[in-house]
Amino acid sequence: MPLAEVDTPCLILDLDAFERNLQRLNGSVAGRGIKVRPHAKSHKCPEIALRQIALGAVGVCCQKVSEAEALVQGGIGDVLIANEIVGAPKLKRLVALARRARVAVCADNAVNVVELDKAARAAGLKLDVLVEIDVGANRCGVEPGEPALALARKIASSANLRFAGLQAYQGAAQHLRKVEERRAAIEAAAAQVRRTTALLETAGIRCEKVMGAGTGTYMFETASAVYHEIQPGSYIFMDVDYARNEWTESGIPRFEHSLFVWTTVMSRPARDRAVVDAGLKASSVDSGMPRVADAIGVEYVRASDEHGVLSIARGAQGPMLGEKLKLIPGHCDPTVNLWDEIVCVRREIVEAVWPVSARGAVW
Amino acid sequence: MPLAEVDTPCLILDLDAFERNLQRLNGSVAGRGIKVRPHAKSHKCPEIALRQIALGAVGVCCQKVSEAEALVQGGIGDVLIANEIVGAPKLKRLVALARRARVAVCADNAVNVVELDKAARAAGLKLDVLVEIDVGANRCGVEPGEPALALARKIASSANLRFAGLQAYQGAAQHLRKVEERRAAIEAAAAQVRRTTALLETAGIRCEKVMGAGTGTYMFETASAVYHEIQPGSYIFMDVDYARNEWTESGIPRFEHSLFVWTTVMSRPARDRAVVDAGLKASSVDSGMPRVADAIGVEYVRASDEHGVLSIARGAQGPMLGEKLKLIPGHCDPTVNLWDEIVCVRREIVEAVWPVSARGAVW
Repeated sequence: MPLAEVDTPCLILDLDAFERNLQRLNGSVAGRGIKVRPHAKSHKCPEIALRQIALGAVGVCCQKVSEAEALVQGGIGDVLIANEIVGAPKLKRLVALARRARVAVCADNAVNVVELDKAARAAGLKLDVLVEIDVGANRCGVEPGEPALALARKIASSANLRFAGLQAYQGAAQHLRKVEERRAAIEAAAAQVRRTTALLETAGIRCEKVMGAGTGTYMFETASAVYHEIQPGSYIFMDVDYARNEWTESGIPRFEHSLFVWTTVMSRPARDRAVVDAGLKASSVDSGMPRVADAIGVEYVRASDEHGVLSIARGAQGPMLGEKLKLIPGHCDPTVNLWDEIVCVRREIVEAVWPVSARGAVW
Repeated sequence: MPLAEVDTPCLILDLDAFERNLQRLNGSVAGRGIKVRPHAKSHKCPEIALRQIALGAVGVCCQKVSEAEALVQGGIGDVLIANEIVGAPKLKRLVALARRARVAVCADNAVNVVELDKAARAAGLKLDVLVEIDVGANRCGVEPGEPALALARKIASSANLRFAGLQAYQGAAQHLRKVEERRAAIEAAAAQVRRTTALLETAGIRCEKVMGAGTGTYMFETASAVYHEIQPGSYIFMDVDYARNEWTESGIPRFEHSLFVWTTVMSRPARDRAVVDAGLKASSVDSGMPRVADAIGVEYVRASDEHGVLSIARGAQGPMLGEKLKLIPGHCDPTVNLWDEIVCVRREIVEAVWPVSARGAVW
């Protein structure tokens, strides 16, 4: 089916651009001694995870147990839950999943470590647990240094847990606009990691792996020589917010927009205004409005539940009623989570439809 | 099951508050000669629509054909699609639906009216079409007055269409914070409606109905004596954004928060910070952050995909790791659209689970 005949709104993936993004990431880290573990929260789609693994990724990251369940169900054998899991029902599912696949999880709290140990014991297995340290994101994680050492000790001394390393993701650095700001933030994070691994070593606790990094900074974690695995997610799709970053340095690849919301102009009420059929329920606006692809002088300025208002500049040719347009989402992760399927297109022809198997898997 | 045992995150409805909201709306318009046609885009849930109709609503509004299909499938017999429907595949489904239920649709463009007429002819039926006029929302709709008359004439003279009235929703007025601003905006809208209906009458075209109004303004449309049906949606749930409106006038009911995202504290990394397991994929932030219910000195300040960061004021008692909290969504409509089910609770006990049948039905 030609894309032109696909009804709107729907979520489409330009396979050529997507595949170039996969290759571009691989090329940028090839031979640098770092492993790639893409974050599946961006796509929630086993078809995509399988393609990442086919190109050398060691597994995926997930944020939630239910998300990990959907990925394992889809054929992924190695999942790091790069997040804390709290509460008996989820811990029970976590250890059940760890019997079906290679699963690791993060912790930032001693009480939680006790619960993890109990759950692992009940399941009769030894669970890999990483200590999450806060390297500047101000979200989860213990402080680097002594608090991280204390928690690692607690994990290492738990009968049913194995201390598997450090999770050191600097989320707040990903969208710093200037390359130098991002580099500086990751150098500071890496220094905190180094300080912590030195303490662990002195204490006789082996820190097998350091994990972290996202699309905005992974080249700096790679260069730091302290990270073992990087966790970029958005590079496959590249949204408007990431495109606002500066990417002006040799050796830092610039990814292409491959993910779009396909939309129809449903109203042309005024010369300077068009309305499309994709609003808040089609494209998440948490990081700003979508951008109209391939259109000059046409700007998506306002979203309501089911409408997007386009402003048409004086002198610009506005789209016609019924015309279909591609929108580049402001933020790809929560946008993908709105859709049950991704319609995959190559040179404007539909090639496949991939289920977003972990859509809505937030628990 | 006690709510305390329900795993998080999930979407919960306080049935007592919800039922009071239903009664409160009914009470506020009783005896005023206006009919209630609630907007189902807020809830996307036939169970809720059926309860609204049981209390006297004449039917529901929908925004999309697929949404209307899900509501009709769920037992609703009368749906106004308060929106324009463009493109042959959707028009085909629209007229197919009009054979199963009472369905009306809006138009704001002569080309679209020709397409509607063709689709109705192909289905062998006469379709009800309203002219949408722009009464200040600056979204869809023709200008009131002569342009509306011209489009109504075109509909009335189409062999397979019936001119069914005017859709005159002032969406931009709903969140004006002051009561007087909202009243003034609706008085201006009503004046535009009056001017248009007078023109229609002079032209010998009967305007059977005028539709419009939302939760923020419906008392003013009711008082205007020009509207026949009101279309509030959010009153059943009442989100943070609507709660920011002033509601300080006798005769204007204030609705209660009945919809919550149930969430767990998954990290307590610092005295002044807690992190919950409900982020952008659990509660839409397009109209601002969620608010923590029943908590003093605890503010939800930042959302990422799967995390919400709570700031704990100096001296306030922060929640413990594992503690469950209720979040009031910033905007209920796109939040409900993230969930497959609504867990219905009465006095902290789960009473029912209602499917969000039209979740993701955006085309």
